[in-house]
Amino acid sequence: MPMEKVLRVGLLGFGTVGSSFAEVLAASEASDIRLTRIFNRNVERKCTSERARFVPSDVVWTDRVEDVLEADDVDVVVELIGGLDPIEAWLHTALHAGKSVVTANKQLVAHRGAALFALAAEKRVHLLYGAAVAGGVPVIPGVAQGLSGDRIRRVSGILNGTCNYILSRMEAGADYSEALAAAQRLGYAEANPSADVDGFDARAKLCILSRLALRAELDPDTVPAQTISQVSAIDFAYAKELGCTIRQVSRAELSPGPDATGIVEKVSAGVGPMLVPRSSPIAWSQGTQNMVVTSGQFGGDVVFSGHGAGGHPTAVAVMSDVLAVAHDSSPVRLPAHKFTVSGNALAPHYLRFIVADKPGIIAAIAGALAKVGANIDSILQHRGYDTNRLPFVVTTEPCLTSTIENAITEMSRMDFMLEPPLCMQILVVDDPETN
Amino acid sequence: MPMEKVLRVGLLGFGTVGSSFAEVLAASEASDIRLTRIFNRNVERKCTSERARFVPSDVVWTDRVEDVLEADDVDVVVELIGGLDPIEAWLHTALHAGKSVVTANKQLVAHRGAALFALAAEKRVHLLYGAAVAGGVPVIPGVAQGLSGDRIRRVSGILNGTCNYILSRMEAGADYSEALAAAQRLGYAEANPSADVDGFDARAKLCILSRLALRAELDPDTVPAQTISQVSAIDFAYAKELGCTIRQVSRAELSPGPDATGIVEKVSAGVGPMLVPRSSPIAWSQGTQNMVVTSGQFGGDVVFSGHGAGGHPTAVAVMSDVLAVAHDSSPVRLPAHKFTVSGNALAPHYLRFIVADKPGIIAAIAGALAKVGANIDSILQHRGYDTNRLPFVVTTEPCLTSTIENAITEMSRMDFMLEPPLCMQILVVDDPETN
Repeated sequence: MPMEKVLRVGLLGFGTVGSSFAEVLAASEASDIRLTRIFNRNVERKCTSERARFVPSDVVWTDRVEDVLEADDVDVVVELIGGLDPIEAWLHTALHAGKSVVTANKQLVAHRGAALFALAAEKRVHLLYGAAVAGGVPVIPGVAQGLSGDRIRRVSGILNGTCNYILSRMEAGADYSEALAAAQRLGYAEANPSADVDGFDARAKLCILSRLALRAELDPDTVPAQTISQVSAIDFAYAKELGCTIRQVSRAELSPGPDATGIVEKVSAGVGPMLVPRSSPIAWSQGTQNMVVTSGQFGGDVVFSGHGAGGHPTAVAVMSDVLAVAHDSSPVRLPAHKFTVSGNALAPHYLRFIVADKPGIIAAIAGALAKVGANIDSILQHRGYDTNRLPFVVTTEPCLTSTIENAITEMSRMDFMLEPPLCMQILVVDDPETN
Repeated sequence: MPMEKVLRVGLLGFGTVGSSFAEVLAASEASDIRLTRIFNRNVERKCTSERARFVPSDVVWTDRVEDVLEADDVDVVVELIGGLDPIEAWLHTALHAGKSVVTANKQLVAHRGAALFALAAEKRVHLLYGAAVAGGVPVIPGVAQGLSGDRIRRVSGILNGTCNYILSRMEAGADYSEALAAAQRLGYAEANPSADVDGFDARAKLCILSRLALRAELDPDTVPAQTISQVSAIDFAYAKELGCTIRQVSRAELSPGPDATGIVEKVSAGVGPMLVPRSSPIAWSQGTQNMVVTSGQFGGDVVFSGHGAGGHPTAVAVMSDVLAVAHDSSPVRLPAHKFTVSGNALAPHYLRFIVADKPGIIAAIAGALAKVGANIDSILQHRGYDTNRLPFVVTTEPCLTSTIENAITEMSRMDFMLEPPLCMQILVVDDPETN
């Protein structure tokens, strides 16, 4: 539907994604969308940079954010800076001024989205955030428009490309520090990689997905996040023997209450390294790819995958949202409700120990598991390791995370235990034909 | 956004998908959507069927379609019957009356969509068709809302669950007739399976995707479709040796003109059995699953997969569209232009021959390929076959389909050739990291 009106875009942030957005916009045939203003610090350096060649010459560059937020020639503010403060206040200002907002800011949408959505609704303007989850993979619009008719019970996947890159490299033989260093060299990981490897980035995205797919508002700070930095080459060797690889998996699932009424009481959610069977689509993601699997009551499993990060893929998501604003295309927005997070999941678990070998170790570990009622499924011990620093693995039948954690607390105190045991869930794959 | 108004739904067709839609609607919390009328032939039998238990008791059942199309208490007509006539006229009537339309009718949208879209735009009502392609996989809304910002150059995938079921079964060892019979027993294939196995169903869906993703209107009748019924167990054995499986692949790609200006002249498109490397996501689809891969200039490859058929998954797509109508959520609709289809693709090809063995066969076949300028990549001949009916395989380096076809015309006339050679393209997989 052709628009008479031109949509005028004010851009906050001219970094990798911001400059890629300018490029994608310039390449588009959208004559009804015009970039009018760009805010960035050190704007003189930015506006003369090589990346500025896609920016029309009549654009106003500024290092005063008010010049965008309060400008008469800005209809939509595109925020590509990230972080909570001062961005939250800036976007409130923009919405109050009746401007629509497109943002890629996962932390802001996850932690403080509710107030922003309410304000946008009150002001009857658009607030779109397709780039905040999985970059160029259209999982936000796909779920909002295409799966609103289902009752999605679970969402899981690979939401952090940096971790997936590191773990893919480790799968191919690198050790953790090598893989991390490679990720840093390529610009995938920050000098301080904590937000990625410790799961804080992924859990913000998981909470955004949870709001949309499960219609459950979660407090991101309450979602357990386990670091991938304890995973070692040994674990990949044992995982392979179990028909698995290892990925940083994010998952959230509606869990019915204990009285079997079907009333959902909690959302079971978490982010961390997990053993993923090779037959699962989640094992297919290589390098920086992202993948989301939604599991619906009626539609079964749906998989979305592609490039979860990088300037151009993320800019596609931003540009698609800007087009939606230009066409006045609002997504279906169904109400979400607040839920408490449980870190508990019923799953088989993988436990890896590093011990100083001596008689009685298996008996002691088996005893600790028996005490909490966890059944051992397999014991794996490869030959050829130093018995003074012997790695071996126990897998359990499905049991609650909290049960395993109790056993681990006891096992950590055992005198032969040289490191705290590493515990990872093993993902159970549903047969796609029975969904 | 809560709606004051209730959206009243008139349903055309109470078969598998129609009754599943009634069930999904009943299970939803959408108090703003109400089923008011159902049209079906032999309505007495339908309204007392077991499947009618999800239909509210105050719904009007009718076998006169006018009772839905002209009803005052119908805001949106949901068409789940299929076929071109008389459905096209019915939906024109509904749109003319100012009713929105949600349809799962791929043939109608593919062949006669342009006029329907124009009428819906003129009447300012919704015309949504998310269920027409890939059933419960939200590729239509995902592309329309999430990838509108990219320039998609190619769309490919598995668009027919019946063929995928048959070929998955053959991959596991069944021969074609066994696999087809199993598909018919399970209700996946019709008594006359031609629409599925000969590719007519898939090419309609491909044309719908092409309009949306490539912004190219194609005449479905001009898209070459090759039957899967010539594929045999032998081909799976040779494909395996080549690191491939065989799938019915649908693909459409913008092909730049010969003068390297970048101006697209034609769309290269086709549907048929193809050798798919195991490393391609397209090889992952098992059973009746569907999968679509879009390849964008900026966003790279994006994969959508899930249940492409079946009452419930398709009903999710229908219900999602009805929710979009209820929330007055129109997708971004970018203009599409008419393009001529070329069946030509530059690809490596697989040629399988059944010959009466005698000296000189390889020389003759190699000669025919040399004459058209096609280079042989490999010659495969397994032991143990009857030399009176000897299958063997030649693969070529990338060459145009038309080139190969010229060679095949010559080879078909060779006296040792017991059957027309089977020719399939071999899908080339891009490295996902370089997209």
